[in-house]
Amino acid sequence: MRARTARAELHDILDAGLICHLGLTTDSGPLVLPTCYGRDGDTLYLHGSTGAASLRTLAGGAPACVTVTHLDGIVYARSVFHHSANYRSAVIQGTAVPVLDDAGRRHALRVVTEQLAPGSWDGGARLPTEREMAATLVLAMDLGEASVKVRTGPPGDDEDDVAADEHWAGVLPLKQTWGSPEPCPLLPAGRPIPERVSGR
Amino acid sequence: MRARTARAELHDILDAGLICHLGLTTDSGPLVLPTCYGRDGDTLYLHGSTGAASLRTLAGGAPACVTVTHLDGIVYARSVFHHSANYRSAVIQGTAVPVLDDAGRRHALRVVTEQLAPGSWDGGARLPTEREMAATLVLAMDLGEASVKVRTGPPGDDEDDVAADEHWAGVLPLKQTWGSPEPCPLLPAGRPIPERVSGR
Repeated sequence: MRARTARAELHDILDAGLICHLGLTTDSGPLVLPTCYGRDGDTLYLHGSTGAASLRTLAGGAPACVTVTHLDGIVYARSVFHHSANYRSAVIQGTAVPVLDDAGRRHALRVVTEQLAPGSWDGGARLPTEREMAATLVLAMDLGEASVKVRTGPPGDDEDDVAADEHWAGVLPLKQTWGSPEPCPLLPAGRPIPERVSGR
Repeated sequence: MRARTARAELHDILDAGLICHLGLTTDSGPLVLPTCYGRDGDTLYLHGSTGAASLRTLAGGAPACVTVTHLDGIVYARSVFHHSANYRSAVIQGTAVPVLDDAGRRHALRVVTEQLAPGSWDGGARLPTEREMAATLVLAMDLGEASVKVRTGPPGDDEDDVAADEHWAGVLPLKQTWGSPEPCPLLPAGRPIPERVSGR
């Protein structure tokens, strides 16, 4: 495992993700919730309902942590002790500031939408109404305090275990793959699936 | 989205996972870290180096949150507003108690190892030495305060958008799949890959 600081690698890890795990501190202790996000430059955007207690807590200035993890494989070592996982993770600590101006809020929502569903904002779906915008809380977080960790490669067994040669060792890679699109049952029959979905 | 309480569903979500996101509160605010875990009955086990600040904080009685999330698909709605994700998540808040007796610690490590790499503890790898055990911190957390959320199915669009029929809608499923095992370069050539790895 090694800590990297290169901004490009941080951006790559964030851009390759679909959801993050958002951490905050509540009256009942730490709380970690899966949620969508998007990145533009060195800003990470979060969004959600204005009724969501977690986002309102953050909008009030409470510190936050956003973690994005890609699990790339299981590391089978010769010893149980050196079993591990190959992964890439980004951990961002800071404060999430509400985005208040309309243009900024729409930009942030575009970024979050494009992270989850590329093409949906730019012609693929109906854009938010004023009422929908009013029901949406948008937060921005600076990537300043980001920490990146990456583990790759074979197990790091002890020399004695390698020499003893009593157990198999290696990596079983893990990938996220798309399945076949499932059209909404309310669509007219025979409607073609757009390339932005089928070609993802 | 709906909250379910059935214990069986909580167990299923935890058992299907490979890593969790562990949340704790530090001097610099909330911190969310990816880590391995295992479940036995209504106990969730965590482990790590005795040198890991995060685990030591928890062992001291600080409240914790463990979240396991499966992202099952991207929900393309007719409106940006109703875009969503299909997922299953379990959120467990509580206190992680150090496991101190040797038998209990070995049992917990077996559970964590089997979650990550089934078969490794029972013959697939060398078991921990006394020195390795001494370097390992084992924590147990009760599943009592667990909350399960599951979203499945097609988008929940507004009737007007369905009637307007201007945009495709549906779900793009997402799966985790195993790649081809990558034997450790230090293994003798031609060593067969065990069924517990190749057949996973």
